[in-house]
Amino acid sequence: MHVMVIGAAGMVGRKLVEAFAAGPDSFGKPIDRLTLVDVIPPTIPPALSGVSAALAIDLSDADAAARLIATRPDVIFHLAAIVSGEAEADFDKGYRVNLDGTRALFEAIRHEGRREPYKPRVIFASSIAVFGEPFPEKIGDEFFTTPLTSYGTQKAICELLLSDYTRRGFFDGIGIRLPTICIRPGTPNKAASGFFSNILREPLAGQEAVLPVDESVRHWFASPRSAVGFFLHAALIDTAKIGPRRNLTMPGLSALVGEEIEALRRVAGEKAVRLIRREPDPVIRRIVSGWATDFDARRARELGFTAESNFDEIIRIHIDDELGGNF
Amino acid sequence: MHVMVIGAAGMVGRKLVEAFAAGPDSFGKPIDRLTLVDVIPPTIPPALSGVSAALAIDLSDADAAARLIATRPDVIFHLAAIVSGEAEADFDKGYRVNLDGTRALFEAIRHEGRREPYKPRVIFASSIAVFGEPFPEKIGDEFFTTPLTSYGTQKAICELLLSDYTRRGFFDGIGIRLPTICIRPGTPNKAASGFFSNILREPLAGQEAVLPVDESVRHWFASPRSAVGFFLHAALIDTAKIGPRRNLTMPGLSALVGEEIEALRRVAGEKAVRLIRREPDPVIRRIVSGWATDFDARRARELGFTAESNFDEIIRIHIDDELGGNF
Repeated sequence: MHVMVIGAAGMVGRKLVEAFAAGPDSFGKPIDRLTLVDVIPPTIPPALSGVSAALAIDLSDADAAARLIATRPDVIFHLAAIVSGEAEADFDKGYRVNLDGTRALFEAIRHEGRREPYKPRVIFASSIAVFGEPFPEKIGDEFFTTPLTSYGTQKAICELLLSDYTRRGFFDGIGIRLPTICIRPGTPNKAASGFFSNILREPLAGQEAVLPVDESVRHWFASPRSAVGFFLHAALIDTAKIGPRRNLTMPGLSALVGEEIEALRRVAGEKAVRLIRREPDPVIRRIVSGWATDFDARRARELGFTAESNFDEIIRIHIDDELGGNF
Repeated sequence: MHVMVIGAAGMVGRKLVEAFAAGPDSFGKPIDRLTLVDVIPPTIPPALSGVSAALAIDLSDADAAARLIATRPDVIFHLAAIVSGEAEADFDKGYRVNLDGTRALFEAIRHEGRREPYKPRVIFASSIAVFGEPFPEKIGDEFFTTPLTSYGTQKAICELLLSDYTRRGFFDGIGIRLPTICIRPGTPNKAASGFFSNILREPLAGQEAVLPVDESVRHWFASPRSAVGFFLHAALIDTAKIGPRRNLTMPGLSALVGEEIEALRRVAGEKAVRLIRREPDPVIRRIVSGWATDFDARRARELGFTAESNFDEIIRIHIDDELGGNF
């Protein structure tokens, strides 16, 4: 089986590739070819060095998609995108990378299939940013997509394309709407959502973290391990069960910032909690107030996608996967 | 005021232009320039000949949109599209005309605005084809768009672009999701939806018409006069009242084929009804069974959009507008 990961240098992309290395039978049959693609050269795990190629390619460059697809991967994970803030700051770049790059990939697959029959599985990383406020208390699977960012618009458009290309038989697509991933490994970044991870990751490492919002803020989370699980499950699922509505809101945990902190107290003690410094930021508070807080995600759960059910679990996964199990 | 109609040779486009001719104060201030655009040269009504230009231009041709927008129209009605059947039969043409043509228009407006401030009102003709079955009994304003045709996909994508370009301040857009227009003037065509109009229009003209489905089939209708009314209202409305959710399901009449026939009996008598020949067509029955039957359309009604409330009214409008008031 030939597996391609586009966006393999990103956080979820890297973890997905690590999962292939850890479980060589991730797909029921062995991966005999793995192509890792990103704008910077992705890292090949040693266990997969014999079958892997790492390519530094921008999908939105002319012919880039056609060159990738000429190798006829059986499963394509498409996680490449520029993030929300950048897509908002640079309108042209956001549409070029997030929309035109994805459309170029889909078109390359369609054209390859006209040359010689070809119908890969395509798993597309979408986002709950396809939704825009005001929201119902719990967003159902049939709620409309009215994004309030260009990033969310680009993701919603790619979802529509994915469904249409699938309906027409050009490929077998699934769109995966990721929750906010928590705890993100690494260092604090400038993303407005960064604090959700920072207030757990930094205290677990003995470092201070800033909390810019109230403890009553509610949001929608899944661990990096769940995110990888979504993609692996999407690659293996019987798509006949999904029908033509190919974009799925993934399950997640709806939780308060206060619940994050309580879980931290239970797992790491009062000393860790004291490392959270309250520093209200009205700008971040306003941005976050426009974000979705809870989803039904019934379809995805019925299709076998799973996520965490409490923050203790999310913290323990971070300790296992990032801190070598030691805290 | 400079008004541009793209798709001015189509049925609704022509009626919209006729409405300008009949009511020179359609916009509160006079139309001192009218640009009519279509792939074939649109007809200029005599009353508007002094201020009008008719252009045969394909919006999806290179630079076509930029040339049109260089004239800086204040109000742009964009009704140009290839129809559902053709977009399904010719994948490339559908995306080129319905998606890329519209995006080129939006981009041309954005670039013109960078050259010199410019923010026209853009009214986009969308369709209930953005929805795909299964449906709730009545489709609410927050129901998701999961089209089951490439045409519906292209319309749904343009809706997303319209909202994003509006949110970014590039223009002031409104998407108008039209019901099935009934009674369509002209002659019977091959469209699967044609019979809804044929079974009224043809008997009113003393001609036979074929009914390929049961009388229990329900669908969603508005007259051509209502369609024109939607566009005129959209051009004048205070868009601050709409907010960021710029695509509106227009009001309409949910009615059974049997109700169409009863209205025909009331207005035109048993002799007219006898001209309807039942000729069940399983293909058309299957296509129609996948169409939406009823909408809430509350937002549009609250914003002042109106349509017919019974089929007697729809028939009388046809008699007034197409048969010179005489039956």
